[in-house]
Amino acid sequence: MALLIIGSDRAADFHKTASEREPDRDIRIWPDVGAVADIKHALAWHPEAGVLKSFPNLETIVSVGAGVDHLFKDLDLPSVPIIRYIDPDLTGRMVEYVTLQTLYHTRRMSEYRTQQSDNNWQYLPEPAAHEVRVGIMGLGVLGQASAKALRALGYQVRGWTRSPKQMDGVECFAGQSELDAFLAETDILVSLLPFTPDTKGLINRDLLNKLSLRGRHPRMPGPVLINAGRGGVQVGDDILACLESGQLYAASLDVFEVEPLPADSPFWAHERVVITPHNAAESTPDSIVAYFLEHVGRMDSGEPMQNVVDRDAGY
Amino acid sequence: MALLIIGSDRAADFHKTASEREPDRDIRIWPDVGAVADIKHALAWHPEAGVLKSFPNLETIVSVGAGVDHLFKDLDLPSVPIIRYIDPDLTGRMVEYVTLQTLYHTRRMSEYRTQQSDNNWQYLPEPAAHEVRVGIMGLGVLGQASAKALRALGYQVRGWTRSPKQMDGVECFAGQSELDAFLAETDILVSLLPFTPDTKGLINRDLLNKLSLRGRHPRMPGPVLINAGRGGVQVGDDILACLESGQLYAASLDVFEVEPLPADSPFWAHERVVITPHNAAESTPDSIVAYFLEHVGRMDSGEPMQNVVDRDAGY
Repeated sequence: MALLIIGSDRAADFHKTASEREPDRDIRIWPDVGAVADIKHALAWHPEAGVLKSFPNLETIVSVGAGVDHLFKDLDLPSVPIIRYIDPDLTGRMVEYVTLQTLYHTRRMSEYRTQQSDNNWQYLPEPAAHEVRVGIMGLGVLGQASAKALRALGYQVRGWTRSPKQMDGVECFAGQSELDAFLAETDILVSLLPFTPDTKGLINRDLLNKLSLRGRHPRMPGPVLINAGRGGVQVGDDILACLESGQLYAASLDVFEVEPLPADSPFWAHERVVITPHNAAESTPDSIVAYFLEHVGRMDSGEPMQNVVDRDAGY
Repeated sequence: MALLIIGSDRAADFHKTASEREPDRDIRIWPDVGAVADIKHALAWHPEAGVLKSFPNLETIVSVGAGVDHLFKDLDLPSVPIIRYIDPDLTGRMVEYVTLQTLYHTRRMSEYRTQQSDNNWQYLPEPAAHEVRVGIMGLGVLGQASAKALRALGYQVRGWTRSPKQMDGVECFAGQSELDAFLAETDILVSLLPFTPDTKGLINRDLLNKLSLRGRHPRMPGPVLINAGRGGVQVGDDILACLESGQLYAASLDVFEVEPLPADSPFWAHERVVITPHNAAESTPDSIVAYFLEHVGRMDSGEPMQNVVDRDAGY
């Protein structure tokens, strides 16, 4: 029985870490796999399409990230269970990212950075956290942890999910029918949605135009978009148009429709757009490998699988 | 009996807000004070030296900010009680600032902003919060609230105070004798210290050279200084020298020895220095005025004073 690491530019790191943790494991890196019949469990990020079906005894696939949409790009993906990566290290990093970007824009840091480059010492009115309404799309493990952290800082937090959810201290909305009500009272929109046929292009001009226009809190300069979920959920051109029209005050984008973000994208130069290279919750090889090996250990000893992806829902 | 507002460029705002809250109060703005004998309580920020002693019936002075060192610049300051401004709005804003700047540097945002200006999509290794040790100098109301918020995000938090203090989950150090031990295990140094003869110039090259050099956490790029207390506590030239030598990785400075920061200061152009115009905890006129009027109400009804400054300690 052997393990496979496939489709990650950190495969060598993963292999080294795994070999240190469990020296007796037979762990192989694609394409140097040896006998395909040996492979039982795979740790996968962006595997080449059609490759995973070539392992006749494959039992499970573990995703390197919390999202799994990249795996479904493989139309020949074998019908074995897919395990999502859920880990305190990844969750903690996502909470850091969402908290950082939310504070960054409510404290008008893009404008302060511009003022700094002009040697300009000038106060700007800023809302206090308790005056700002953050709306989180997606209240899974990452969304709930982010909501909790933002509430602790005083933000008003609301959530929107596909199917109804409840969370203490968070006003919850669900489904298409409640989307407009959710948006109308949201100042900072945080997307942690997975990429599915339902969410593709959801964050477009029509949706952004429904965000609160800040009648209530004059110190909040305008709506903000933070996307740390999946790039395919947003329409980049629409975001740019809304930044130009003033419907959006600012944005923090960790994900894009095409990654890496092309060098000629207008996003790079926008003064009130913060770009990070899809690393909002970039977990460490040690945490990822520990998770993978723990899963394999559970399988070895016949324990039930955890964090299995719902293939029908697509996440 | 009349109230006085003195030494603030927001005096007109304060007056308007106070008059809306208590229309029957006699509230005057210096220098348009009328009969000096009428003035009983003053809300003061940077009053001209010698002016406050001209009110023979002055009973208390309320500071517009949490710090009061600016009042002691007046060598003729009358010996009436001075009340420090302590309020959830101010505390919340300081927690926002400290949390924001701590996250900003642990997530290497200065470098990401530089990469963005070069259209450069590149991962940088970043420590998780739980790998970073934040050392807070000053554990008063603001320091304790900041420590709690950082702990909730997973940071290891330690504190240093003049006299011994205890706080759950925070490793506490006190006095000159424990300062080196505090610094040796601190990655991010946060100063919320008041400006007193004891703290003047405390954050100098000698102190900064004692900060942890990150033997333990390779993803933390180096020590960081965050000063949201008072500019006189730091030696700006030493901070610049430490940034140049690499002893400091980055800094967030809300306060300076001379404010506004002079246009020719080298701080403005430093890529890894974040400058804000002494507004880390810029409270709203509404909150400040409500606090002042509440204090006046307490005096009117003979209740004890709260948040009285210790003149011997200087804060």
